[in-house]
Amino acid sequence: MEALRDGRINVDEASERLRFLPYEDIGFARVDHQRYLRRGFPEVIYCPGKTSGQVVAIFGRLAASGGVVLATRADEETYEAVRAEHPGVEYHREAKAIVLRGEPEKEPFGCVVVASAGTADMPVAEEAALTAELIGSRVERLYDVGVAGIHRLFDNWDKLSQARVIVVVAGMEGALASVIGGLAVCPVVAVPTSVGYGANLGGIAPLLTMLNSCASGVAVVNIDNGYGAGYMAALINRAGEGAKQ
Amino acid sequence: MEALRDGRINVDEASERLRFLPYEDIGFARVDHQRYLRRGFPEVIYCPGKTSGQVVAIFGRLAASGGVVLATRADEETYEAVRAEHPGVEYHREAKAIVLRGEPEKEPFGCVVVASAGTADMPVAEEAALTAELIGSRVERLYDVGVAGIHRLFDNWDKLSQARVIVVVAGMEGALASVIGGLAVCPVVAVPTSVGYGANLGGIAPLLTMLNSCASGVAVVNIDNGYGAGYMAALINRAGEGAKQ
Amino acid sequence: MEALRDGRINVDEASERLRFLPYEDIGFARVDHQRYLRRGFPEVIYCPGKTSGQVVAIFGRLAASGGVVLATRADEETYEAVRAEHPGVEYHREAKAIVLRGEPEKEPFGCVVVASAGTADMPVAEEAALTAELIGSRVERLYDVGVAGIHRLFDNWDKLSQARVIVVVAGMEGALASVIGGLAVCPVVAVPTSVGYGANLGGIAPLLTMLNSCASGVAVVNIDNGYGAGYMAALINRAGEGAKQ
Amino acid sequence: MEALRDGRINVDEASERLRFLPYEDIGFARVDHQRYLRRGFPEVIYCPGKTSGQVVAIFGRLAASGGVVLATRADEETYEAVRAEHPGVEYHREAKAIVLRGEPEKEPFGCVVVASAGTADMPVAEEAALTAELIGSRVERLYDVGVAGIHRLFDNWDKLSQARVIVVVAGMEGALASVIGGLAVCPVVAVPTSVGYGANLGGIAPLLTMLNSCASGVAVVNIDNGYGAGYMAALINRAGEGAKQ
Amino acid sequence: MEALRDGRINVDEASERLRFLPYEDIGFARVDHQRYLRRGFPEVIYCPGKTSGQVVAIFGRLAASGGVVLATRADEETYEAVRAEHPGVEYHREAKAIVLRGEPEKEPFGCVVVASAGTADMPVAEEAALTAELIGSRVERLYDVGVAGIHRLFDNWDKLSQARVIVVVAGMEGALASVIGGLAVCPVVAVPTSVGYGANLGGIAPLLTMLNSCASGVAVVNIDNGYGAGYMAALINRAGEGAKQ
Amino acid sequence: MEALRDGRINVDEASERLRFLPYEDIGFARVDHQRYLRRGFPEVIYCPGKTSGQVVAIFGRLAASGGVVLATRADEETYEAVRAEHPGVEYHREAKAIVLRGEPEKEPFGCVVVASAGTADMPVAEEAALTAELIGSRVERLYDVGVAGIHRLFDNWDKLSQARVIVVVAGMEGALASVIGGLAVCPVVAVPTSVGYGANLGGIAPLLTMLNSCASGVAVVNIDNGYGAGYMAALINRAGEGAKQ
Amino acid sequence: MEALRDGRINVDEASERLRFLPYEDIGFARVDHQRYLRRGFPEVIYCPGKTSGQVVAIFGRLAASGGVVLATRADEETYEAVRAEHPGVEYHREAKAIVLRGEPEKEPFGCVVVASAGTADMPVAEEAALTAELIGSRVERLYDVGVAGIHRLFDNWDKLSQARVIVVVAGMEGALASVIGGLAVCPVVAVPTSVGYGANLGGIAPLLTMLNSCASGVAVVNIDNGYGAGYMAALINRAGEGAKQ
Amino acid sequence: MEALRDGRINVDEASERLRFLPYEDIGFARVDHQRYLRRGFPEVIYCPGKTSGQVVAIFGRLAASGGVVLATRADEETYEAVRAEHPGVEYHREAKAIVLRGEPEKEPFGCVVVASAGTADMPVAEEAALTAELIGSRVERLYDVGVAGIHRLFDNWDKLSQARVIVVVAGMEGALASVIGGLAVCPVVAVPTSVGYGANLGGIAPLLTMLNSCASGVAVVNIDNGYGAGYMAALINRAGEGAKQ
Repeated sequence: MEALRDGRINVDEASERLRFLPYEDIGFARVDHQRYLRRGFPEVIYCPGKTSGQVVAIFGRLAASGGVVLATRADEETYEAVRAEHPGVEYHREAKAIVLRGEPEKEPFGCVVVASAGTADMPVAEEAALTAELIGSRVERLYDVGVAGIHRLFDNWDKLSQARVIVVVAGMEGALASVIGGLAVCPVVAVPTSVGYGANLGGIAPLLTMLNSCASGVAVVNIDNGYGAGYMAALINRAGEGAKQ
Repeated sequence: MEALRDGRINVDEASERLRFLPYEDIGFARVDHQRYLRRGFPEVIYCPGKTSGQVVAIFGRLAASGGVVLATRADEETYEAVRAEHPGVEYHREAKAIVLRGEPEKEPFGCVVVASAGTADMPVAEEAALTAELIGSRVERLYDVGVAGIHRLFDNWDKLSQARVIVVVAGMEGALASVIGGLAVCPVVAVPTSVGYGANLGGIAPLLTMLNSCASGVAVVNIDNGYGAGYMAALINRAGEGAKQ
Repeated sequence: MEALRDGRINVDEASERLRFLPYEDIGFARVDHQRYLRRGFPEVIYCPGKTSGQVVAIFGRLAASGGVVLATRADEETYEAVRAEHPGVEYHREAKAIVLRGEPEKEPFGCVVVASAGTADMPVAEEAALTAELIGSRVERLYDVGVAGIHRLFDNWDKLSQARVIVVVAGMEGALASVIGGLAVCPVVAVPTSVGYGANLGGIAPLLTMLNSCASGVAVVNIDNGYGAGYMAALINRAGEGAKQ
Repeated sequence: MEALRDGRINVDEASERLRFLPYEDIGFARVDHQRYLRRGFPEVIYCPGKTSGQVVAIFGRLAASGGVVLATRADEETYEAVRAEHPGVEYHREAKAIVLRGEPEKEPFGCVVVASAGTADMPVAEEAALTAELIGSRVERLYDVGVAGIHRLFDNWDKLSQARVIVVVAGMEGALASVIGGLAVCPVVAVPTSVGYGANLGGIAPLLTMLNSCASGVAVVNIDNGYGAGYMAALINRAGEGAKQ
Repeated sequence: MEALRDGRINVDEASERLRFLPYEDIGFARVDHQRYLRRGFPEVIYCPGKTSGQVVAIFGRLAASGGVVLATRADEETYEAVRAEHPGVEYHREAKAIVLRGEPEKEPFGCVVVASAGTADMPVAEEAALTAELIGSRVERLYDVGVAGIHRLFDNWDKLSQARVIVVVAGMEGALASVIGGLAVCPVVAVPTSVGYGANLGGIAPLLTMLNSCASGVAVVNIDNGYGAGYMAALINRAGEGAKQ
Repeated sequence: MEALRDGRINVDEASERLRFLPYEDIGFARVDHQRYLRRGFPEVIYCPGKTSGQVVAIFGRLAASGGVVLATRADEETYEAVRAEHPGVEYHREAKAIVLRGEPEKEPFGCVVVASAGTADMPVAEEAALTAELIGSRVERLYDVGVAGIHRLFDNWDKLSQARVIVVVAGMEGALASVIGGLAVCPVVAVPTSVGYGANLGGIAPLLTMLNSCASGVAVVNIDNGYGAGYMAALINRAGEGAKQ
Repeated sequence: MEALRDGRINVDEASERLRFLPYEDIGFARVDHQRYLRRGFPEVIYCPGKTSGQVVAIFGRLAASGGVVLATRADEETYEAVRAEHPGVEYHREAKAIVLRGEPEKEPFGCVVVASAGTADMPVAEEAALTAELIGSRVERLYDVGVAGIHRLFDNWDKLSQARVIVVVAGMEGALASVIGGLAVCPVVAVPTSVGYGANLGGIAPLLTMLNSCASGVAVVNIDNGYGAGYMAALINRAGEGAKQ
Repeated sequence: MEALRDGRINVDEASERLRFLPYEDIGFARVDHQRYLRRGFPEVIYCPGKTSGQVVAIFGRLAASGGVVLATRADEETYEAVRAEHPGVEYHREAKAIVLRGEPEKEPFGCVVVASAGTADMPVAEEAALTAELIGSRVERLYDVGVAGIHRLFDNWDKLSQARVIVVVAGMEGALASVIGGLAVCPVVAVPTSVGYGANLGGIAPLLTMLNSCASGVAVVNIDNGYGAGYMAALINRAGEGAKQ
């Protein structure tokens, strides 16, 4: 890929080479070792809908190829099954994530701020923060700064102003994204959560709020998708980093 | 009704009396003169779906009974038709409202603040302000103070802190209701508007935002229902006034 | 805040002072002692999505600052956990609310009527009534007066006519809000409930009914949001009270 | 069909006979003369989506077979086109219906009451009333008796108590169906209308209200479907009539 | 009410009398003995959302006033609780209904056909059939005659042609209502069920199908509302009966 | 592609070749001449959202490459603009389609039946029929055979039983797809139309009906997508044809 | 049916014969032996909403008539109940299907490819594959080839290019159907799955994606309806086969 | 703000200063000159819902403060009104944008690729491209590369691989975002458009597709929000640029 980026080979040649890179067909899954090459990060394992056995098998193949492995929305039982095979894994209970740290990690770069509106939004916020950290970002957490007590937000303005990108995690009506988006000078990645009830509609309300934000520079990921927000934030953070070199 | 409130007659007796109060059956409408007695304000005429002729006829009956007459969402043509019969009417173009002021007006009481997020929300905000004024309230207008430039809101904090009730009018994502609701010490009546596009869904987005507001003390009326918000605000304002005596 | 209201300090000065008022950062929550000052009522703890441990910790901080503490939608287990630390708390089983009464309570003021349509709406109605009482309001309960047997409503008209504000709690199709709203002379706060099935859509049907009410003077809170309705009603009731002085 | 009902022939025989009854294939439509036999009423022509020419052609075939012909939602232009061919037709402007009365009409039977909530609901109410009349029912109209002024309804209770079936036509929130349904002793056919705005959602709000009615004995037809309600009401009214014989 | 219908008393007088009829206030419910008088059938107890204790208490009051008592959507536990107090009750397991038969029953009158599309629709169909029977109707059941094997429907045409009213119960796409509605000569009450998955949306799909039926003479009740359909059908059936006398 | 299908070249080789096949970049569009090779049919031009000028330009490039050219949902003005450049084009007014027939056409193969429920569904049905014909299929039209008069359908059973694939076009509630699907022995492609009003929701109602069809062997395309249904039907019809050889 | 297809008997005669074919009325179900004759495949038993006892009873009747029997969405308990009566049945755990293979099976014909996007889509994909196989089709499985690693799809292009019809099974956003649809030369049957969360809305997101596919030649079945897709694919595959003879 | 970023002043000091920065109250709008300072770009004027006169007035104030002025969704009439006052403005007809270029522009930095699926998506794509250019970004346009002819996308892979951020604009089903997102190594900002019909639901379908994208590194803005996407992309692009220095 570096050769490609340097212009030493063209995209057809690169595509030819990629075509012969191994991926493993293990019946119920095609484990994609190329993704690390293409995107700089291995395939994440989204656990719901997969049996513990399937998660363990995919985890094993990815671990064998080196690099960081991340399994999201993993329950305790899945964690135990993975740990039986990989004693070195960590379990982040709040984020419900299993992590295998591969190589010695580099110094974290840039600055991603993860801000959340309420205590119940923490699992999603933690998933975002953890994901961004695993891709190498330095992460600042700023939790429970929702709009109902807006002075808590302003008191932490210094943290927000240092960010290269801000992840805003909010349920209920999700207004926090607009307030931060209206003040910040960097891109904002907004994550609606399913925290709420009634006309919250399982997170549809904050999703619509964030999509209609009157503030510019806000883009949105799926409801409760902490992983996706952390990944997007890390890419943006890295864009800055890459350009610096 | 005063007799009723004073306990001089009971509700059965009052109900008997009401039963014989005249209302006029003009074929396509039953003009309700009792409403003035029951609610302290005449029936408003909601114009869409009625012909100009029907509006003029109902307007005439209400005007004959004295008191203020208000016709909402009236286009120019309807206004011209009404003016032909009632030269003294005013037309509030921004609010699309026809008004006939009846008796000499009293000194306005209390304080209703009407705050709106953007320039395009003005017609709804004006309908709310006008309605509250017609019921006797003193109204302060605070327009274009949306969340995208939140300092404009804070600079007008003195106005907000004097309110007995605040009407918040906002389209797009409607976050202004949560921000004001989180700071204010009085009740907030929130009006979502259909200003916006795409995932705004004709005002559903700010409606959901306002219903899910993480701030307490916020209640919501229908999309674009400036009249309803102004009426509700005036009732709340009057509750304070009435109690004062 | 009184200084602010009296005009002795301006909003900038007040905002400066507020900035230094303590709130406590306990990691997963920023406990907001200012809210009592700003809104006249401490932060309520909405329990779903928080662990028992988190509720106990936040409860403790709020209790330490004096005043009333209210935890809503608390199950028995959470109650037991809180009681272990605060033996003086009450548990309102019907309303699923934990209450710690702080100071000796004042005489209740004004009159809030809470009317509900059916027996199954009682938990929401009780949450509303309890909340309004905790903020100091006198509350009258009027339960099971739904539209299917409308004479039960008319027989209790005397109660309704004394209200300074009426909270209407109804599921199914929620028509009770329109009927009461059409008759009452005071503001109505309507609460749709999720009681019903099929095309009730988890409370969306009565929510839409109430938002579209043909009666004026009706505003709406979120589905099953008894707390929000009680809070709004108490603010309105207090507006009257404050003005009286 | 009478032979079938009398048991003189079985359904197979009847079905054989029906199979050879003529219907006319005019290319874009198959005009169904059997419907008169099967249902006691000719095919109604629903005009939207058909050209004037198509309406005229179908109208002609139905007129040729005798009996009443009804074209609904017909604009003036379509009416003019039909009148050019059939000078005897009536145009009911409010109901937007073209009618050709065939045979000398019988004495109307039974009693259908059509009640509507507001002036803007009249076109739908008129379509219902006209349809029921054309099938032979005696119809009482009771318009503008919505819930916002509920005493107007009670004053007309004598009309409602004489009905064999009541059609309730209401837009906005549609609460009138529940109020009448809770009081009436006969079946109620409820018609939501698209009168309203915002969270009315083009009639979805009153539709949901009516489907969730806490009153028993209420069934619902499509939004603005005055024709369908009038037809259903006439069938119910006739069921009584038929039984009488 | 007969006096009212006969014109011997006017509606005001009747309303006065009704006003003094007892209903019992048992705290969480106002048991409505007038309903029997007004509608000819006692209040049904809809069990979900009520505790067993509440159901038993309401059941007791209704039983004390004589007449049939019906509790719908009752689980086994509630049944056992009711039976402990009222040993004579029946439990209809398929329909999930508890029934107490009061007076010696009269000869069933007229003919209600209940047709259902699939085996899984039976609980709703049984609730409809049982309700209609309890109000005195003769009921014919015609189950599992869905559109996927339409000849099963045609083979039972003789049953359908004898009906004074047909209840059609169908989930999935609900097309059975249109097919029967297009052939029948009597009113059709359609009940969508929540049988299905995916784009069935919990019964919304057959609900929309039935509301949009191209056949005339079809009206609809709420999803899974067998009780409501049976009640409506019995009223229609009785309309015929009443007229016969 | 034939070489590919015969196995003479592998997919990589084919993909290499395809990579160099010309497509034309005309700024606002990349005209795809490969599509004819890949799918056996040129790119169709969907006109809405394109200016007349853009349609004419794309039409010209496709015409230059030979073969049939089809522009759907074209208004008269667009047709006139195209005809000015290509005098040989046909305009199918009912289907709103512009057609340029290229090579001498082959004998049509197989049998596609296009059945529609009502007269207003004809434009969509015609678009489907025309599309299938242009790809070479023999098409039988069977219009206005909706469920409200189901005997019209049975009388045309011979046509339906000869089909290799049936396209069912229906608006309102769309039940026709289930009825035909339950009887037919061949695949059914169902097209919901936006014909209807109110709870039809612009075609959502028949779309859901068709997706939930209790009949097997039914698949669905987008609302009003006559082109897509005709294309799908032609592919199925050709699958049979291809296999025959 | 062959006689019918050969034209030896007309449809009336056939319909007469069908009318006397036995179906069995077992109270809660009418077992339809004609379906095998009409559609070439016995009635499938959809298990949800049926008791184990009902499934066993229907299974028994179908088994008695010979031919393949298929019960879908069957849990282990139902399988055990069926196996107790029919020891020869297979249980396909992944597809949750019970199968009784009747006659010695013929050589599978044609080629159906079933492609799925992710591991969690496998149960639906297996249901589709199994269904198509039971109707006699040769099936190729191609699992976990989703768009996130699109090269996995291109590497299996040879399989896709041999298909007579392709079933595409995808959850999340369902884009795989468009990618395959844009490349394939045969019909594509798309199955959205409920795999996903948040704005996936239980499969509505991929359903909409597939219905709006910009690729031609794609038709859609209900969410998670693997059976329906396999059935449709087998009919298309057989159309080819039949034509070959 | 630079002082703030350099740490020379703290956020409280900055906030104090901002508080006194002028904004102009012109009655219907509060023109926010601070936004340029806070966000690096002046307030954009969103024209719908504003009169031409209002647009001209706001445009004038912004122009007076120097810097670029952008008015989006402006029709010809508004353009003419603005040009009368500001002869130097440009009108970008495709993007419907009015632009006043202020200072001599700097060399564009970085690389934003704007890719669109079809010709009808061009107005939104142009709005995005223009916005990003006005903030200083170098922009590459890649139009009409939708999934239906996916080879057009691969042929332009070199452009995509040079991007620092990619904006993907797509209507219909919006699958292009997933395909590009699965291949790209940089962040993707996805814009659904309202291009489509029927189950497209005015852009809801591609919106859901993009939110549920199985590819990581994709975030979404509102339907048709080209401006928002261009703004977000420019911020990301600049993050890279800023870091480089």
